[in-house]
Amino acid sequence: MIRDLTDDEARAALVLKWGQTEPGVIPAWVAEMDYATADVLTDALVDAVRASRTGYPPYESGGELGRAYSEWAQRHVGHTVDPDHVVPVVDVSQGMRLALDVLSEDAPVVLPVPAYPPQLDLAEITGRERVDLVLDPDSERAGIDLDALEAALRDGARTLVLTQPHNPWGRVFTRAELERIRDVVVRYGARVISDEIHAPLVLPGAEHVPYLSLDGTADHAVALVAASKAFNTAGLKCAQLVTGDDATRDRIFAAPMTRNDSWSTLGVVASVAAYDLGDPWLAALIERLDQQRTLLADLLAEHLPDARTRPLEATYLAWLDLRAYGHRDPAATCLNRGKVRLAPGHDYHPGSAGHVRLNIATSPERLTEIVRRMATALSGQSGMMLR
Amino acid sequence: MIRDLTDDEARAALVLKWGQTEPGVIPAWVAEMDYATADVLTDALVDAVRASRTGYPPYESGGELGRAYSEWAQRHVGHTVDPDHVVPVVDVSQGMRLALDVLSEDAPVVLPVPAYPPQLDLAEITGRERVDLVLDPDSERAGIDLDALEAALRDGARTLVLTQPHNPWGRVFTRAELERIRDVVVRYGARVISDEIHAPLVLPGAEHVPYLSLDGTADHAVALVAASKAFNTAGLKCAQLVTGDDATRDRIFAAPMTRNDSWSTLGVVASVAAYDLGDPWLAALIERLDQQRTLLADLLAEHLPDARTRPLEATYLAWLDLRAYGHRDPAATCLNRGKVRLAPGHDYHPGSAGHVRLNIATSPERLTEIVRRMATALSGQSGMMLR
Ligand SMILES: Cc1ncc(COP(=O)(O)O)c(C=O)c1O
Ligand SMILES: Cc1ncc(COP(=O)(O)O)c(C=O)c1O
Repeated sequence: MIRDLTDDEARAALVLKWGQTEPGVIPAWVAEMDYATADVLTDALVDAVRASRTGYPPYESGGELGRAYSEWAQRHVGHTVDPDHVVPVVDVSQGMRLALDVLSEDAPVVLPVPAYPPQLDLAEITGRERVDLVLDPDSERAGIDLDALEAALRDGARTLVLTQPHNPWGRVFTRAELERIRDVVVRYGARVISDEIHAPLVLPGAEHVPYLSLDGTADHAVALVAASKAFNTAGLKCAQLVTGDDATRDRIFAAPMTRNDSWSTLGVVASVAAYDLGDPWLAALIERLDQQRTLLADLLAEHLPDARTRPLEATYLAWLDLRAYGHRDPAATCLNRGKVRLAPGHDYHPGSAGHVRLNIATSPERLTEIVRRMATALSGQSGMMLR
Repeated sequence: MIRDLTDDEARAALVLKWGQTEPGVIPAWVAEMDYATADVLTDALVDAVRASRTGYPPYESGGELGRAYSEWAQRHVGHTVDPDHVVPVVDVSQGMRLALDVLSEDAPVVLPVPAYPPQLDLAEITGRERVDLVLDPDSERAGIDLDALEAALRDGARTLVLTQPHNPWGRVFTRAELERIRDVVVRYGARVISDEIHAPLVLPGAEHVPYLSLDGTADHAVALVAASKAFNTAGLKCAQLVTGDDATRDRIFAAPMTRNDSWSTLGVVASVAAYDLGDPWLAALIERLDQQRTLLADLLAEHLPDARTRPLEATYLAWLDLRAYGHRDPAATCLNRGKVRLAPGHDYHPGSAGHVRLNIATSPERLTEIVRRMATALSGQSGMMLR
């Protein structure tokens, strides 16, 4: 069911990931998968285009999209979501901006880092200060430092950007972890924006707990969800902001419409098809990603034994600590000497060194070649060694 | 070449305009046309979907989109645009927000009103004050009051939102008018954001002059353009911000990426197809709209002889002064008593009364029925008469 794109197909399909990467270089950077779109999505999109469904989408919460997401959430993560609490947004990043602009106090924002790079900008573009909770690269387990969170809130921060499952940490937070986070947040009357775009990509062994499914979160949190990451449709531009209660939903709609009216009609079509009809494809995808995860572990053991990784519990994005190889910017080394394009770790944590993010959502052959090339590149001499 | 959608087709296709209007009511409100998408766009979109082109679009100015727009602008309005000055944005409204946020001084914004309603919110969502230049409803010709503009700039405003061709005025400003506007703007060191989304919809008899084609505008203006209004693809989410020089383009890209990275891949596909291959369809459309314009004049003369209109020089959106019929909110009267949904004039000019905007981009039969229903509704008694 998962069809690997050939290089030529990938270049035509993935116009950013492949199209903006030099020929000859294997792209393993931006979070897109080298797989063909699921047939159920293609069919739904073709039907919509043939029916001239190219005009403005409905302006509403709920609707087909709310119903489809709500049913999906019930089926996949056992979370009961009122369809009318599902508000379309153009993408997750703009949904987070919207939540900050409309719902959050004008006070600093707490961001666990390393973080998905656009999250680093959210504070600035909403006129706020950013307080980073920096993950110790040497810690065994990636988690949110509750003492640091508490200190930030005590000092005046009023919003926590939570990402779960976490990119690039690969973590799926447990219910107990989330409850402890909630307790701190509630104590300080703060808000949570929970980026759960990777929820459909939880791999065998872990279980996703929606933040809004915890007791006592409805009035202080929103979640950003989307079918786009799991179904490879980030370019179709539709995500969903889920509120916990009517009041929060109403505040969003009371804001000037121009703050949130850019989601696309075909994005809605793709999302509804993914939520309603995508389960078999998603199951096949998870199986493939699980295999790729195992393959990566084997390849690293063989070719890059000094690379450190934490368990990849979700996403197809592996965070690799390559400090042992002594390169300040291993992504640059791998690009220049290995013709593999990885995401540089310092994009996720400015000022950090020695880390990369590797996208494993490709064919086993490409992943094998990627790690071989990385090993060759990193074991040679480099211009820019770590001090 | 222009294929009218049946009611059933329109309800499936135009999910906002028709889908969010009660059955039995003829929708003539939001700016969408009751015509099937051009085949060249449908084919391009189907091909893209079948090729799995659903991932992120390229992140760049220029590219295919810049080339296609630049060639279109040369062909259609004789304007030479450097392709690399063409920056994709998700839609015109967000492009204007971006221009205000990134380029404009933190000072009041001047907006000629009646205005396209989302423009009324732009000042607020960018943290600015709005200064309205109100068009006298009794003036023979709709124009920008230069004395009022000058006064606003003298008082500290630093951005003019220019819309040309103008919605809902239906005006295409002449070169001489635009030069006078430019001279005032330059005198005060202000900026212009020129919304030219309706440029492809100039009707026979008028000629569109891009603001950036005037001498001495490159360093203080940007234009927002799109194929979406002329080709009925507002739901595909791609517009273009055109800068006059490299420096302005570079300032846009120097802003955090999260301010502008939401345009859709299929929106790019549709735009390129429209610009490259859409000329024959656009020519047929203009012919049809010209006929609808004549038909409207005839219908008004027959059924609503006291309606006042100014010449419709561009767009398919007629601004009707219905004050003579004595209804404060004639759109409500027409909806409730005539089962025709028009856009209420007070959405364009808060506090105003007695005006509506009528969308003529439908079949001759529907337009005929619309005006008949309006006449019946407006000539009966009404609950809310003008004082
Ligand atoms: C955690 C996280 N949030 C958001 C996004 C992007 O979402 P969007 O393209 O909808 O803004 C990504 C993309 O990889 C992501 O990893
Ligand atoms: C003057 C004007 N600007 C902008 C728009 C909307 O553009 P977009 O949907 O790209 O924001 C319209 C829609 O009718 C319009 O009339």
